[in-house]
Order: sequence, then C-alpha cells, then structure tokens
Amino acid sequence: MTGGRDEFALIETLRARFEAADGPLRGGDVGIGDDAAVVTLPGAGQVVLATDLVVEGVHVDLGTSTPEDVGWKALMVTVSDLGAMGCAPSHVLLSVAAPPGFPVERLGDGVADAALAAGCAVVGGDLSSGPVVMVSVTAVGPTPAGAPPLRRSGARPGEHLLVTGALGASAAGLRLLTGAGSSPVPAPLADAHRRPVARLREGWVARLAGVTAAIDVSDGLTADIVHLATASGVGLDLVVGEGVVAQGATRVEALSGGEDYELVLATPDPEGLREAFRAKDLRPPLDLGRCTDRPGVWLLDGEPLTEAGWRHRF
Amino acid sequence: MTGGRDEFALIETLRARFEAADGPLRGGDVGIGDDAAVVTLPGAGQVVLATDLVVEGVHVDLGTSTPEDVGWKALMVTVSDLGAMGCAPSHVLLSVAAPPGFPVERLGDGVADAALAAGCAVVGGDLSSGPVVMVSVTAVGPTPAGAPPLRRSGARPGEHLLVTGALGASAAGLRLLTGAGSSPVPAPLADAHRRPVARLREGWVARLAGVTAAIDVSDGLTADIVHLATASGVGLDLVVGEGVVAQGATRVEALSGGEDYELVLATPDPEGLREAFRAKDLRPPLDLGRCTDRPGVWLLDGEPLTEAGWRHRF
Repeated sequence: MTGGRDEFALIETLRARFEAADGPLRGGDVGIGDDAAVVTLPGAGQVVLATDLVVEGVHVDLGTSTPEDVGWKALMVTVSDLGAMGCAPSHVLLSVAAPPGFPVERLGDGVADAALAAGCAVVGGDLSSGPVVMVSVTAVGPTPAGAPPLRRSGARPGEHLLVTGALGASAAGLRLLTGAGSSPVPAPLADAHRRPVARLREGWVARLAGVTAAIDVSDGLTADIVHLATASGVGLDLVVGEGVVAQGATRVEALSGGEDYELVLATPDPEGLREAFRAKDLRPPLDLGRCTDRPGVWLLDGEPLTEAGWRHRF
Repeated sequence: MTGGRDEFALIETLRARFEAADGPLRGGDVGIGDDAAVVTLPGAGQVVLATDLVVEGVHVDLGTSTPEDVGWKALMVTVSDLGAMGCAPSHVLLSVAAPPGFPVERLGDGVADAALAAGCAVVGGDLSSGPVVMVSVTAVGPTPAGAPPLRRSGARPGEHLLVTGALGASAAGLRLLTGAGSSPVPAPLADAHRRPVARLREGWVARLAGVTAAIDVSDGLTADIVHLATASGVGLDLVVGEGVVAQGATRVEALSGGEDYELVLATPDPEGLREAFRAKDLRPPLDLGRCTDRPGVWLLDGEPLTEAGWRHRF
C-alpha cells in the first residue's frame, strides 16, 4: 500500500514457490488464494484456517482507535475470512508486537470481547516488543456439515451477486475520525471503522442456502468482487444502487473504501437466499447485479471498471 | 526484552482474561501456557497449534541474517513448539509485514526451504507493509497416536532431566557475527544462529519413549527449565557438565543464551531414552540432573539459581 509493488502479484509469486516446495494439496483441500485454507490433517479430518495482520499506521491508527479497538478488529478481520467460506471459528491464536509501555492488556480485552462475540476461544499466542503495534491473529475451525466450505471460485455465468449489507461506513467513519471537523462522528460510522463485525451467521446461512461463491469485503467492493470473478472465470455486470451505499458514506467509499466485512455472495436463486436470511432473522442481502460469460469484462452500471480502482500497491 | 515489564506476568494476565471470556477448555485440551495448544474441534478431532513472532531488531538483525535466514528461522522456531510436545506440523500459515522494497520473495524462499525440511505445507498467509520486518508463523498438526502430546507439567520428583544437544552455539554465533573481529565465524556457530533446526524427530521419539515432560530451549536453558519445573511442581537439582556447552560457546551462553531449540526432557528412565534415540540414529541426549520434591528450589551445581538469570523484561 505504500510502495511500488503489486501485492497480488507478490502473493502469486509466493504461492508458486510454496506449491513447488510442498507438492499439490490433497483432494478437497484449499490452499493459498482463497479467504481461508481448508486442509486435511492426518487422522484429524478437515479444518479451516485463516490468518490476518493488523499493523499500526497501515490498518489502524492509535489516534482514531483505542487499544481495545485494535484487538477487536484484529480478531474480527481474521474470523471474517472463515465467515466468507461459510465456516465458523472455534479457536484462535494471538501474536502481538508492541513498543514498551503500550497497554497490551487493553488490546487483549478487545480480543477477548471479540472472541466472545464470535464464539471462539483464545488458546495461545506470542508477545514481543516492536517499533509499532502489530497484531497477527490466526483462526481455526472445523469444516461444517451440510455443504462444503464456500469458495471464491464457484460462481457461474448468469448467477446473481448480492451483498449482506450496505457498504462504505468504515471508510466514512475513518474520514470523519481523521477530518478537521469538530462535530462528533456518528456512532454507526465510527463503530464501522473501529469495531467491524464479521458476518459469521450470514456466511453459514448462505452456505446452507446453496450460495456458489463468496468473499468478504476487506479491500473494497470492486477489488474483492473482481477477485471472486477472476477465481470463478466469469465476467461482471454490476449494478450498485443507492441502497448499497451506507448512510453517511459516499458512493466512492461504498465501491472502494473496504474494511466493511460484509459478504459478497453468488447464487442462482436470489429470492431463495433472501428467504433463507429472513427465516434466520438476518437482514436480506442487497442486489449487486450478475455474473456474465465474459471473463475479464467487468462492468459497473454499464461502464468498464478500471484497474486503478481495485489494485493496491505496497 | 526492552522495557520494564515482565513478559511472563503479562502472559498470565492475558491468560486469565481469555479464560474468563471463553470458559474452561474441554477435557484433554491444553490452552495458553504450554509450548503449543491442543484443542478439540467439533467433528474434526484434536489438533495441535502454535504461533511465534520474529521481529527485526528484536529476534533477528538484517546485518547478520539474510532475508532467507529470517524466513527459515520464523518457520523453525514455530514448529519447534510442536516438536516440544512430541508432535509434528502438517500445515503452516505465514504473515509478513515489511518495509517497501524488502525482498519478501527471498524471505518466502527461506520459509519454503524450512517447511520442506520440517515436512509441512505453507497453505495461507497475509502480507502488509510495516516499518520493520515482522514475521508471524502459525503451525498446525494432528495429535499423534501412541502417546498423548508432551506437556511441560508432567515431570515428577526423582526423574532425570536431559537435553537433546549441546547449548550456546546460537548465542556464540550471534556474538561472533556482531563482534568487531574480522576472522570468519565458524559455520556451525553462524548456522546455529541463522538456521536453527527444530528437533521434531527427537520430540516424537521422546514422546513414544515415555518422556513425562518437555520444553524447547528458546529463552535459555535455565529460564526454560524453570518453566518446566514450575509447571510440573517440582524442584531442580541441575548438573550441567562441559559436554552440554557447545564447542565455541561460553558456559553462560549455554546456560542462558537461548535460541538453541534443543529439547529438555524429563524421564524416569534415562537409559531407555538414550537407547530409543540410538535406535533411531539420533544423538543420545545429555544429562542435566534431576527433578526434586522441593518446588521452587532450583539448584545449579549445588548453588541457587537467581531470578535475574532467567526472567526477561520487555
């Protein structure tokens, strides 16, 4: 995000290197490149694993987030990757590097609160000093029964795309928290930035309702939906209505702000999906348009999406 | 390591907080406070999990280690925690924060080489920019058959303590690599610091040979053996002969240098343990003395160990 290299190209280089060293995964396993990994442990069955880094000055700023917020966010962004596969975390590990004097206990309180909310236990970790606060959370969960984990790669031409909630609130919250204005930041926007909530129940219900592909909105809607389309080998004909833009957010924030952690879902049966959500008292997902049979052609309201809109550099 | 707080006291505070939030673990599970966690995943059986952080300027220095070395070390120190439980890693996740321009690919090569040596696959991760290089590796493995994972807490009074190899080479290597001298650093010492090797086979054989407790030497022999003794509720009557001091290392480096990643083992039958090692073509473990029935009394060559010798601050 701060330099000249393309993050996704670097991930591809590393993936190729690791696969060359390790050989192919076992049948049914999922390696680098999806939201989470799905691996078969000899004698222990299949488990789902994900890890995420939160770095001060890159993902969080201690001027706008408390230590508790940083801990909460580090846990939630990680378990969100399991939610995007329709899975739930059972256990997490926490590693923290922080400068001397930083209240690690307060960060731990935020992690504990988020773990309680997400239904998982913190069972290990590591601590170190470091020049800035860096938090790494790894989450593990069982592969659930009833339907396999959701992949990014399962969407088919003609299927509908939906999102579990309005977008842009996190980016709007960050804009207002760091802005020059003295008026208080509306709580829903500040909370969206400081205390995101992983859509674990939504992912679970979506998996059981026959959703074919899913991804969480971490980098930004257009970036993440292009990941899904690329993995699925489909094109995109996106229609983003005003209902998808969170109250108080701009359209640009909704399209590319990121860190909303809502789930994008592909399904041949959007009405059935909405009904499944209603039956579990979840907000019905919002329409985003369709998948097409033109891989690499990505349209937003009829216009081509430009690469500048969705590739980070770091 | 750089400030006024006691790392172990902070870990205790966090452990209490997480246990209050999560409730007790299931029977047979192992949470925070051992080398690795052992957890039961609903429907997937028991797995072993460990995570470690390697931070530039704290654990590694790019003046004395290459990017490949940093990757190798980050993987090995993590899987060493599984080795200390007599378990083996099957899969790892890798997270890296690094400044713009840092050759992350080279670090990835070191991780891949170490994963190949340790017999595990790299299946996921995360990348971020950051002010210094920070690597977090999480390893998972199945709980093995034949005997349960080794704990720190299983040693009993009268049992013998042994270590899988001579100690102090890593600290001696670091001393020579950072020293003013212009003579080349002996390869075994430089390698011990830059390319530590987790004692996975040794841990596995020890578990099956009836060892009652184990820990890896990461913080330093006296620090780590006090952890084992405290967890087991035994005292220590250590006798550290010259054979335990690695060639080229000082006695102080052997006792408190750390980062050797040899395993300390407790057993009622040291001769049987040596025979089990010989049968697998492993170097026979070296004697370190005995456990006693005086918890909190820690003797080294008949003299009390002082707290200053084994507690870090950070």
